[in-house]
Amino acid sequence: MKTNRLEAFSDGVIAIIITIMVLEMKVPHGNALHDLYSLLPVFLSYVLSFIYVGIYWNNHHHLLHMVKKVTAPILWANLHLLFWLSLFPFATGWMGENHFTSIPTMLYGVVMMMASLASWLLVAAISASEGDNSSFKTIVGKNAKGKASVFLYLFAAILAIWVPSVALAIYVIVALFWFVPDKKVERELHVKVK
Amino acid sequence: MKTNRLEAFSDGVIAIIITIMVLEMKVPHGNALHDLYSLLPVFLSYVLSFIYVGIYWNNHHHLLHMVKKVTAPILWANLHLLFWLSLFPFATGWMGENHFTSIPTMLYGVVMMMASLASWLLVAAISASEGDNSSFKTIVGKNAKGKASVFLYLFAAILAIWVPSVALAIYVIVALFWFVPDKKVERELHVKVK
Amino acid sequence: MKTNRLEAFSDGVIAIIITIMVLEMKVPHGNALHDLYSLLPVFLSYVLSFIYVGIYWNNHHHLLHMVKKVTAPILWANLHLLFWLSLFPFATGWMGENHFTSIPTMLYGVVMMMASLASWLLVAAISASEGDNSSFKTIVGKNAKGKASVFLYLFAAILAIWVPSVALAIYVIVALFWFVPDKKVERELHVKVK
Amino acid sequence: MKTNRLEAFSDGVIAIIITIMVLEMKVPHGNALHDLYSLLPVFLSYVLSFIYVGIYWNNHHHLLHMVKKVTAPILWANLHLLFWLSLFPFATGWMGENHFTSIPTMLYGVVMMMASLASWLLVAAISASEGDNSSFKTIVGKNAKGKASVFLYLFAAILAIWVPSVALAIYVIVALFWFVPDKKVERELHVKVK
Repeated sequence: MKTNRLEAFSDGVIAIIITIMVLEMKVPHGNALHDLYSLLPVFLSYVLSFIYVGIYWNNHHHLLHMVKKVTAPILWANLHLLFWLSLFPFATGWMGENHFTSIPTMLYGVVMMMASLASWLLVAAISASEGDNSSFKTIVGKNAKGKASVFLYLFAAILAIWVPSVALAIYVIVALFWFVPDKKVERELHVKVK
Repeated sequence: MKTNRLEAFSDGVIAIIITIMVLEMKVPHGNALHDLYSLLPVFLSYVLSFIYVGIYWNNHHHLLHMVKKVTAPILWANLHLLFWLSLFPFATGWMGENHFTSIPTMLYGVVMMMASLASWLLVAAISASEGDNSSFKTIVGKNAKGKASVFLYLFAAILAIWVPSVALAIYVIVALFWFVPDKKVERELHVKVK
Repeated sequence: MKTNRLEAFSDGVIAIIITIMVLEMKVPHGNALHDLYSLLPVFLSYVLSFIYVGIYWNNHHHLLHMVKKVTAPILWANLHLLFWLSLFPFATGWMGENHFTSIPTMLYGVVMMMASLASWLLVAAISASEGDNSSFKTIVGKNAKGKASVFLYLFAAILAIWVPSVALAIYVIVALFWFVPDKKVERELHVKVK
Repeated sequence: MKTNRLEAFSDGVIAIIITIMVLEMKVPHGNALHDLYSLLPVFLSYVLSFIYVGIYWNNHHHLLHMVKKVTAPILWANLHLLFWLSLFPFATGWMGENHFTSIPTMLYGVVMMMASLASWLLVAAISASEGDNSSFKTIVGKNAKGKASVFLYLFAAILAIWVPSVALAIYVIVALFWFVPDKKVERELHVKVK
């Protein structure tokens, strides 16, 4: 299998995920401003998830762009990532409809954590296939940002049981970390890790 | 990242948006003609939005076709545009189901305005990347039509609070402006602006 | 715009239409065989529409394959066709849920007629662009099958008001006409027309 | 028609199927952990179906990759396969929502059987087109795994009427058979068949 097919399929799945997420924002029956206002939490959770899926799509590209040969582990690591991304609409809808209460906010963090873990596994699968001296290893490095994210989501998900607002703040901050042009952040994170 | 990936992803998202919009037209329980008739407002709002998404897809192509290098600002300006387009099904369904009453008709205008503003930002991001002497600047020019649309939608959205029918007429007229082959309208608009 | 973009976008929309149609087949609450049995009409209407969308996708390809240059009329004639195809899930669901009664069966025919009319317009738009001596005109010929379908759907839709079962039979027969390899049927139809 | 169009369209449909399947996992109204817990059967059936669709996508690629010319039988055998795959979301949702009871578990097996039968027909259509001495026949061989799957699904579907748990175990085992890298399993199966 060539890389471009894997990319096209992943693009398709991610495009659908980012779009059906909006279906959780159900058209209200009333036609007043306060009917709209009651949808605000769902809207805000949609905005956050839209940005996250955008970041994943962006990173996914940069990742697959460096793959020379699609092996079975890469293929399944990729499908595994798409699986957790496919749970974003559910987790987003549940968190939004319940106004960012404890358990739904925790679940959101768990899905986030699993998706970032799946990304980590995908990076590992590509690393194993490309070999130690590949340009992939040089560019991706120790994947510090990716690994740190997994633990931040885990930490936030646990925290959500008591203070969902802080957990939510962590989700937003991690998104910002990824949103800011990569190299700069990575350099900063490298310094921190050292 | 190459342009064709950005185009393919955007195409995918726009294709899904234009198609799931029809899901707001719920299958009625009755089987008589008047059951169908009661769906007329939803159908009409669907027709309007279908044409709008068609116009956006068309313009989006012409725009991305001129991009030589995808920079981070272009990528995020593009996702920002897709975000507002993804709200079309919601805004369309709400306006249709409430028979073009004030607030839903206003929201439709606000989403329209944000989408056209996002287009404007995308044009600006491409302009900044391509440079002052690029063929892009020559062709797109002052983007008068795009800028004028933003203000027309804003105007219509405010108007919708009192006279939604006039606001709706403006939405239809702006769609016609974009529907008519570009160059001709642009020339006319240039004259008007001068 | 190049043909391949128009094809890719149309493919995307048609792929979504053919897939969301199945969403009209709602998961029943009971878990017995008769719960499934009550879905039979919806299932049968889904099968018919699936075949129809498959035929449209197939013909659409052969059509666009012969296009050398995408003009504005071709682009909008294509979007117009996609618009009517996008109403298939609605028409299919309504007809199935109402067990092929008069008005829903009539609507199905109307949507079919409009889609075949839209195909006719697309053929005309391509013809106009390619010119009289093009290979397109030679291959497509008088588009007898396409034109005949429009009138057969119209006839069936009117008939549906009194005898929906006969209308349904016509829908099935027209599908078979298109399903059978093209050239053979076309030759037969040419003879009939003469 | 070229192979890449058939692949792109199939990819699109499969990408949508794998993604809309998650829509059967409805966002619960409550916000407690037990609301989530009650969704566990739907989630598990989603996991199983996600893996299955992933396997189908993977095999579909390897299959179409070897096709040199798309004939009408290949095209319709492919659409026939997509039809049965499109019923996965329905069968998955029904089985999950009814906690793996008899009839829904049976239906799941029937849909599985039909999809594997459709795969078999697709292999046969390609075989017929490529000819006896083609590399396709050499690689695919007797398609023992594909044929065995059809009968295993049939067996499991019948079994589901009395012991759905055993049927479910068979579905999982067959998935594992396909999940494990192909060549190894095929060699083992060849030995078994001999």
